[in-house]
Amino acid sequence: MPRKKAVCLISGGLDSTVAATYAKSQGYEIYTLTIVYGQKHSKEVESAKKIAKELGALEHKVLYVPLDEIGGSALTDSTIEIPTRTRPEEIGSEIPSTYVPGRNIIFLSIAAAYAEVVRAETIFIGVNAIDYSGYPDCRPEFIRAMQEAIRLGMKTGVEGRPIKIETPLINMTKAEIVKLGYKLGAPLHLTWSCYRGGEKACGRCDSCVLRLKGFMEAGIPDPIEYEYYPKWYKEWLEEKNRKNL
Amino acid sequence: MPRKKAVCLISGGLDSTVAATYAKSQGYEIYTLTIVYGQKHSKEVESAKKIAKELGALEHKVLYVPLDEIGGSALTDSTIEIPTRTRPEEIGSEIPSTYVPGRNIIFLSIAAAYAEVVRAETIFIGVNAIDYSGYPDCRPEFIRAMQEAIRLGMKTGVEGRPIKIETPLINMTKAEIVKLGYKLGAPLHLTWSCYRGGEKACGRCDSCVLRLKGFMEAGIPDPIEYEYYPKWYKEWLEEKNRKNL
Repeated sequence: MPRKKAVCLISGGLDSTVAATYAKSQGYEIYTLTIVYGQKHSKEVESAKKIAKELGALEHKVLYVPLDEIGGSALTDSTIEIPTRTRPEEIGSEIPSTYVPGRNIIFLSIAAAYAEVVRAETIFIGVNAIDYSGYPDCRPEFIRAMQEAIRLGMKTGVEGRPIKIETPLINMTKAEIVKLGYKLGAPLHLTWSCYRGGEKACGRCDSCVLRLKGFMEAGIPDPIEYEYYPKWYKEWLEEKNRKNL
Repeated sequence: MPRKKAVCLISGGLDSTVAATYAKSQGYEIYTLTIVYGQKHSKEVESAKKIAKELGALEHKVLYVPLDEIGGSALTDSTIEIPTRTRPEEIGSEIPSTYVPGRNIIFLSIAAAYAEVVRAETIFIGVNAIDYSGYPDCRPEFIRAMQEAIRLGMKTGVEGRPIKIETPLINMTKAEIVKLGYKLGAPLHLTWSCYRGGEKACGRCDSCVLRLKGFMEAGIPDPIEYEYYPKWYKEWLEEKNRKNL
């Protein structure tokens, strides 16, 4: 019997890496798809390539879709500043400036096209409705609607074998995602989450702050290097190291 | 009161040109969007630019989305032949090889992102469920599902002003589309429908055959030039010219 196949959207970040590792753990052969959309943090793309290789993807596709020509986000428009935070509480539930209009709609559309061509039955996407509650395209109701649009708009749907969208992380906290990734042996050391594209992760943007908080709450030190560590993370790590002595 | 705005997807073809002209006739200021997806008939893109100018678009955006790197269609994969027909009856209701996986899902996703950024309330797309009944992403039920996914996945939807998708041509025959375009003064002479990218339209592909049949049934001679005219069109035109003498 041929093995089941999945297209895994991987950005090079933590969540999508854990989602793709989860797909593998469920017996899927995986095709990895990275969409470069003109974001400032293109360093993620290099990470995605290493992760695809590490996970043994049948094929890794990198597609450039110029969302920066549309703009409307701090991630794609250099005139909009990426917000800096030092405490996780500062991250609100309003839609942040790092929201990219239509991002997951576009990503899932392209993933569906790719899935249909390679005959993959499932798409895995590492969206999360808990820590990023401000992004409307990370909500379960959006995912369901998108799956329905894909079913109705594609040949596979007409033929009665609609493409499914799996979101294994959708209801997990960042700490739970870190724990799952650790348990499954996901290549967390290769991931890149920082919104800024420096040599090391900045430790100050929303994404770095949420990631460090997640590792701390999971009780696992983050394996990547940061330019700056928030006070609360540094104190936790020192405490942990003291206890381990 | 500011005028209402719309994003019009224009391919350079007949249907989308009539749809955009219709949007203007309904009082919209229009932004035109052409997505180049690696199709063989990139001649359409040149037509789209001229049409946008002719229609007085506030902005015309051309975005390259490399669907040819995904393949799966005669339009984007040079190893799949574009079918040749000489009679409209040969065009069946099965999904043709010119189907591009996910095309309108991807187009509408990008149009929605663009609409949100320029604050357009509506997207116009020239899909048609009659003459292209084989394309699942031209069906009304797909359009409704896609509008719902866009509502749930975007900021505008969260804020209670969801983007609408208008499909003024969806239930029209090609002849009705030609008549509407003619009545509204759409720049039909600038449109390009041929799937092949020759100097003149080929007159043999599905798209040329449907177009010529539409003009014939509308009683209006097609203003563009063809390399080859099917016998039935030539006979009709000669008959018409004889009567007009």
